[in-house]
Parts: sequence; C-alpha cells; structure tokens
Amino acid sequence: MENTPNQTPGDDRVVSVREVGPRDGFQNEPETIATADKIELINELGRTGLTRIEVASFVRPDVIPQLSDGVEVLRGLDLPTDVERMVLIPNSKGLDNALQVRELFDAATLFVSASESHNKANINRTVRQTMDDVKAMGSRVVSEDIKFSAVIATSFGCPYEGKVPMERVLDLAEEFAAAGATELGFGDTTGMANPAYVSRFFSEANRRLPEVEVTAHFHNTRGQGLANAYAALEAGCRSFESSFGELGGCPVPKGSTGNIGSEDLVSMFHEMGVDTGIDLEVLIAAAQRVQDVLGRKLTSHSIVAGPVDWTGALMAANAG
Amino acid sequence: MENTPNQTPGDDRVVSVREVGPRDGFQNEPETIATADKIELINELGRTGLTRIEVASFVRPDVIPQLSDGVEVLRGLDLPTDVERMVLIPNSKGLDNALQVRELFDAATLFVSASESHNKANINRTVRQTMDDVKAMGSRVVSEDIKFSAVIATSFGCPYEGKVPMERVLDLAEEFAAAGATELGFGDTTGMANPAYVSRFFSEANRRLPEVEVTAHFHNTRGQGLANAYAALEAGCRSFESSFGELGGCPVPKGSTGNIGSEDLVSMFHEMGVDTGIDLEVLIAAAQRVQDVLGRKLTSHSIVAGPVDWTGALMAANAG
Repeated sequence: MENTPNQTPGDDRVVSVREVGPRDGFQNEPETIATADKIELINELGRTGLTRIEVASFVRPDVIPQLSDGVEVLRGLDLPTDVERMVLIPNSKGLDNALQVRELFDAATLFVSASESHNKANINRTVRQTMDDVKAMGSRVVSEDIKFSAVIATSFGCPYEGKVPMERVLDLAEEFAAAGATELGFGDTTGMANPAYVSRFFSEANRRLPEVEVTAHFHNTRGQGLANAYAALEAGCRSFESSFGELGGCPVPKGSTGNIGSEDLVSMFHEMGVDTGIDLEVLIAAAQRVQDVLGRKLTSHSIVAGPVDWTGALMAANAG
Repeated sequence: MENTPNQTPGDDRVVSVREVGPRDGFQNEPETIATADKIELINELGRTGLTRIEVASFVRPDVIPQLSDGVEVLRGLDLPTDVERMVLIPNSKGLDNALQVRELFDAATLFVSASESHNKANINRTVRQTMDDVKAMGSRVVSEDIKFSAVIATSFGCPYEGKVPMERVLDLAEEFAAAGATELGFGDTTGMANPAYVSRFFSEANRRLPEVEVTAHFHNTRGQGLANAYAALEAGCRSFESSFGELGGCPVPKGSTGNIGSEDLVSMFHEMGVDTGIDLEVLIAAAQRVQDVLGRKLTSHSIVAGPVDWTGALMAANAG
C-alpha cells in the first residue's frame, strides 16, 4: 500500500469487499453490455486483489435481459483460484439452472425483503412464503457444497412502508442462519440508512449472529454511503459490498445514485489503515475501463480524484 | 421535521451548519454570477432556517473577479436578523475595505495554511508571517466588535507536503484562540481527511480548545465528506461548514468535487435525529435554484433524491 501517514496508527483491521458491479451494476444498465466486455471487465476485477465478485444472476431472461448471458459469462471467466464467484438466484427455477453449471461458481445469494410490500412488489410472494422458499433452496445449495449467502433487502427502511423494525430483520436473519446460511447480507435497498441507525443495527446484528459473517450493502442515494460504511465498520462489521464506478443499485428516486463505489470505499479504508487486500490503482483503472465501455461518466469520486497523494508528487508534476 | 422513525431515539444533539456556497462556491465558478442572482440566492438561503452564511470576500477584484461585487451583494441582502453574515478577509488591505462597511456583516474569517508550502503557494508568505498578520488583523476585528473566526487550511493534509502533524495544527489553533478568535475552523482543503483521523483530531481539538467553537470544513473529493462529518460529530464537533449543491471547494485534482453538499449534510443529520434548525425541503429548493442559475447539474445527492420519504407517499404516487 502507498505512503499514508495520516492513517490510524496500529489499525490492523482487515475487511472483505465484495464487488457487485457485474451483477447489480450491469443489470441496471439501460443497454445490455456485450458478453465479451463483461468477461474482460470481470477478469480485470480479478486482477485487483478482490477475492469476492458477484458475477452473474440466474434470473429470467425476459425479465432481466441484461443478464441473460450469465452462463456464457461464467464460462468465459479467467479468475485467480482464490476469487469467490458469487451468483444471485431468485427462485427454485433459477437454482435448477444454476446447478446445471455448478462447477462455474462458488457461492449463491438467495434473498428476501424484510418488508411485505417490497417483497410483494419485487417477487409477488409474502415474506413467509419467500422465507420458506429460500430455506428450501438454501438446503439444496448447502448439499451441493455451495456457500449459502442470504440477503435481506430493505433492512434499513422500505420505500412503501417506511420503517422496518430491526427486530423483524434480525429475526429473519437468525432464521436463515439456523437454516444453514453462513453469510447474512443486509441491504439498504433504496438508500434509507443513516450512520446512527447503522451503528446500532450492526452492533445488534453481531450480537445476535455470532456464527455467521455479517455483510453490509449500502447505497449512496443521499451521499451517506461511506458514512454508513464507516459506522458499520466501527460497530464491528468486516464485510462490505460495493460496485465499481458506483454502478447499479436501485435508482429510486429516478436519477439517484445506487451502490457505493468500490474505489471510494477502498480508498477510505486504506486511508484509515484498514486492509482490504485490493490494489486501489488497479481497481480505479477497472472503473475507468467500465466507464469507457459504457461511454458515459460514472459517479464515483475516486475515478476522478484518484488515490490520495501523500507525497506531493502530483502537485509537483502539475507545477512543473 | 418529518417523520423519521429510524432516527436515533433520544438523540437531542444540536449542530450549527454554516452555508459557504455564496463565497467558497461562487468564487470557484468559471463564469461570474450576476450580482442580483447572488443576492436572490443568499436571501433564499436566509429563508431555510440557516443562521450562518458566508456571504462575501474582501479579496482583490483582479485576483478573484467572481467576488468583486462583495459590497454590492452585502448591501442588497435582506436576511433575518438572527442570521450571522460572515465575510472572508485575506489581508489587512481587505480588512481596511471591510471596515468601511462594518455594519454590513457580523463575523470575519481570517486564515492561514498549516503547511508552509501551501501557505506560500496561496499567499506567498511564511506561516509565521501570516500568523502574525492574522493575529494583528484579529485584534482589529475584535476591537470593532466583529466575531473573529480563524481558519486553518490543510489541517488534514497538504497536497505539496503530504502529512501535516496534528500538533502543528493545534498549536496554531491555540495561538489564535489566545489572540481572541472565538471560532476555530479546520479545513480539509484538498480532501485528504479520513474518518479515523478526523475522529482523533476532533477529540484532541476539543480537549485543547475548550473555550472556542471548533468547526469542521470537509471536502467530498473521494466521497468521504459525510463519513468525515459523522466521525467529527461523534468526536464532539458541533459546528460544520458546507455548500449548497456541493458547489465550490478546491477542485484539485481537476474535475473532483469540492465542499460537502449542505443538503446532503443536513439530510444525514436529520435522519440521525440531530437538529440543525434548517428546513431541508427549502434548502433543497435553494440548491435547485442555484443549479438553474448556473445552468448545469450539480453534484449533491439530495438535490436529486430529495429527503428520505418515510411515509411511502412518493412510491404510492409513482405507482398511481
């Protein structure tokens, strides 16, 4: 890592960052990205030091055509062996399809919304029905020796219902943990989290879920994404999801940004002296590359500003 | 304030937010904004509940032509009587000019850079020379019954020198406090602060400066602006500066964002249950208005996303 003299002395915290741009990001692009471009971008992400990437989704191609080439993408990948390839699986039909190519991935995300209205709007099932579905799918996943990662959407608020009680979210999480999930992700689906609530939430989540990995997924809808990540870190969270270029997320309201940018998250962690194992400059190059592929400016900050320059070299070069 | 059920229960913290867009923002616009527009925008800010606005600067008009109409702007303002009108004064000539219209403002910002190289690049004086100048100016300011607010730029890092020792910054701050400054502002001039360092910095600043108000001024260069504000708040800081629409700041590297957006900062505080006294919707309207005046999209998030909707009304309206 670079010379970062203002970092926390003696901070030896290590965090895991999962890149979700190739699924959560590419899915939300108005124009479908060419399969070859997707493969190249994901392979580039594999050279950053990232050890977890969400690479595809087994959704219905008529519903999300942007990801209909999932199996082709999986087949085309050339990633280091220590990179965990995660896929999103929305239902048992998707799981059937995924298991046809079981060797192509390592971990599966199965999800529910904590809010009835959002779950209904999203997949037209009750939360109870979905919980039962997901637990059944989870047991199939586990029996195939695939990592079962459960995600709870609208964990910090629902755009239809408003408040989503912490008790309710953590009850669902415990139920997933008991059903074999080894990772529990909490999604701020429409960017309603704030750092004070996040701090309390992850303190309680860690207390109630001592046996599973607890993962934070924040959006940057009102610019609070990194504040929420910092609050979660301070409350003991050590696993985070983000998206290169700040791609993706749920663009509600229209025009708002989605996921926090991976390069901004990693930049913050490195400046604090928190280890991610990621080479920030290579990650920024990958984000610049996806910007080129999409042909538009993306919204992450570090893609413009670059890593913090603690040496003065940049200013000296500009002055020269 | 709105229905914010996820806010911190019992959080009764109150913070002060100073809007710096009319000085720090307007100064950095490539095209000078018409005087009448400035006056209208500042008067609109005066209707948000903001009680502190940096409204003008007594700089040389040939150096910063964007602010050459400062006196005209001050004369045109129609602000509530409880709004503190702050002006930036870079040198004793500026102070001479300011004192000609002493009745038009309430507080003066006088500044130094903690870093020799930055101070030299900025005003071509040593830090020691500038400290002596500013203290002499400060004593004139105090004798005119004007509030003396001292600002220390590059408090969290210097683009030329890298690290700026905390000791050095706080020594300068104590010297200003002893010279009569009642507010000490710490500026993250080129966006090098991180929340871990900010947390330690403001804990120490509050310990060493018990008699003065300590103010945080962060930039959002790498998206960490609100994370830094949250860290400062948690460390006891209760005074913040920000800029509507995320205007201004030091655009280094080129294209990076500057100050944190006032509406994003206020949105975060309100969601946490921290009181600012500001009407967020009126503030967002003011940011939208400056966007209209400048004729380009600004980078704050809340200007697009609006306040968090805890009622579901927005989604219901969109569905209907």
